[in-house]
Amino acid sequence: MVETIQWTADGVVMIDQTKLPLQEVFVTCRTHAEVAEAIRSMVIRGAPAIGVAAAMGVALGVEALTGPDEARFASICRSLAETRPTAVNLFWAIDRMKRLWESLRGRPLAEIRARMAAEAQLIRLEDIAINQAIGRHGADLVPDGKTVLTHCNACALATAGYGTALGVIRAAVAAGKQVDVFADETRPFLQGARLTVWELQQDGIPATLITDNMAGHFLKSGRIGCVVVGADRVAANGDVANKVGTYSLAVLAKENGVPFYVAAPVSTLDLTLPSGDQIPIEQRAAREVTHVFGVQVAPHATRVENPAFDVTPNRYVTAIVTERGVARAPFEDSLRRLAE
Amino acid sequence: MVETIQWTADGVVMIDQTKLPLQEVFVTCRTHAEVAEAIRSMVIRGAPAIGVAAAMGVALGVEALTGPDEARFASICRSLAETRPTAVNLFWAIDRMKRLWESLRGRPLAEIRARMAAEAQLIRLEDIAINQAIGRHGADLVPDGKTVLTHCNACALATAGYGTALGVIRAAVAAGKQVDVFADETRPFLQGARLTVWELQQDGIPATLITDNMAGHFLKSGRIGCVVVGADRVAANGDVANKVGTYSLAVLAKENGVPFYVAAPVSTLDLTLPSGDQIPIEQRAAREVTHVFGVQVAPHATRVENPAFDVTPNRYVTAIVTERGVARAPFEDSLRRLAE
Repeated sequence: MVETIQWTADGVVMIDQTKLPLQEVFVTCRTHAEVAEAIRSMVIRGAPAIGVAAAMGVALGVEALTGPDEARFASICRSLAETRPTAVNLFWAIDRMKRLWESLRGRPLAEIRARMAAEAQLIRLEDIAINQAIGRHGADLVPDGKTVLTHCNACALATAGYGTALGVIRAAVAAGKQVDVFADETRPFLQGARLTVWELQQDGIPATLITDNMAGHFLKSGRIGCVVVGADRVAANGDVANKVGTYSLAVLAKENGVPFYVAAPVSTLDLTLPSGDQIPIEQRAAREVTHVFGVQVAPHATRVENPAFDVTPNRYVTAIVTERGVARAPFEDSLRRLAE
Repeated sequence: MVETIQWTADGVVMIDQTKLPLQEVFVTCRTHAEVAEAIRSMVIRGAPAIGVAAAMGVALGVEALTGPDEARFASICRSLAETRPTAVNLFWAIDRMKRLWESLRGRPLAEIRARMAAEAQLIRLEDIAINQAIGRHGADLVPDGKTVLTHCNACALATAGYGTALGVIRAAVAAGKQVDVFADETRPFLQGARLTVWELQQDGIPATLITDNMAGHFLKSGRIGCVVVGADRVAANGDVANKVGTYSLAVLAKENGVPFYVAAPVSTLDLTLPSGDQIPIEQRAAREVTHVFGVQVAPHATRVENPAFDVTPNRYVTAIVTERGVARAPFEDSLRRLAE
């Protein structure tokens, strides 16, 4: 299995997710600014993965400091926080690095550098363990002998490894269940076509690619046993921000009596927000919609809307699977208990 | 406005809809076999348009006959009927040409040829008039000052001219209503991105392109006043087969209290089918999903499902707009009355 992101002596090495699946290109980021650009341009993407990347970006920034410069440290953190607005894991990871920085005030710079680098690597390793725990909790929910529908890429590449939604599927397969996966291609960035199908093929889990607009047809057909997706931010009431199209899937799943599961680490919970209405939705460039891999598919001067995420109200969510257990409605209570 | 299809001295001329919007290429079909291939490869597509094309294909086939050969005529009709299974307008048009052929038995071949060619051209002209009538009936339904969401291309290019769904929008604009249009890109063939946006731009109607999976987000937002789509076949109970993704839109529209309108000529009704469950759904090639304009977007050997259509149960359909008036539930009664 290809590693999503690693801390090396040369810098932070990521597989370039804009080039997959046809090219396996690795990018080495040597500065925090290069990490920020890799997050912004989606060389690395997926809420847990960009949390790890941001932490490593902070550590790289600290490595380049010539002294314990508070203003410079704040600027490093800010440049990483300004890359993408929706996934809360980014801010969670930066906050964790900030707290460590503060706890190390007055310590020698060499120690600060080493501790920050170690913390970023720890976040990566913890993320893999967290995903495996999500998988264990979620595997029981997956019906045996049916198809699992997933959207976007909540797989190893969206995390430090193993994956959230795909972690649940992997754990179900490891537990001996017979499942195959339908993957929405997930326009405009095609994470499903390019990344999810590729990962499933590498794991030997049977995968079928469909366009996003076919999901309803197959949910109605009775073939789909459950939907499992990741999340970029979950509000206190259980409203879920995730890749655009998730809301549509959730409505169609409910309409057809198919369970809809969200797999996400506790770091994706944002209990400061009472509901999903307060989650900022990133708008991305028109070119992602008008062009596919550089090929123009719409007329010149086409007006575009390109929200990268949508919000699924909690009433469509059957359960939220975290590393600490499975939350069900009323989510205000169940999520708070898991977060404590 | 570019003509979708025309009968000329050289043959049947179509604009190649696989090349739009970046290239305006016209194709001349000189035999019924070339027309059949143009339908199969989607050089021409859209239920009413392929009805016109099939009629012209039959007329071209009859032009090439050296005598009133019944077996050869049946073979011509069969080759055109076998191109695409879902849109009923294709079979409707071929049946109409067959009935004329039968009524001309015993007449001189030159007369038969001339009458068949005239009939095909009449079907084309009637289709334009029908779409204008659909527009008149539908314009009242479009809320003023809101956005209309449409899927696929039910525009002039899907018909002989004016369009079904776009006919309704055009008529609403002509009646002085302030409307703009959100067009789903409509993967895998991208009819929305390539054709609908292009037509709306030519008409000066404000158009915004979105990916299919964004439609739910905007239906939830309150911005969309109604959804208007075309149809490939409507069963006696009002179940509607249309481009894949239509079912999802209809469910999402109902969930958000947005009216969902189907605009289609009476020739799209198939009252021989009690429900949509009996409508055959065309499966198309995997390559349409794995490649976009020739560019590969999925791993090698990716398994694909590619149903070209889905069926929307009648409970999600607010009204069906035909050239003879507007049908509402119970559709068994209202559609039968319009068809009589």
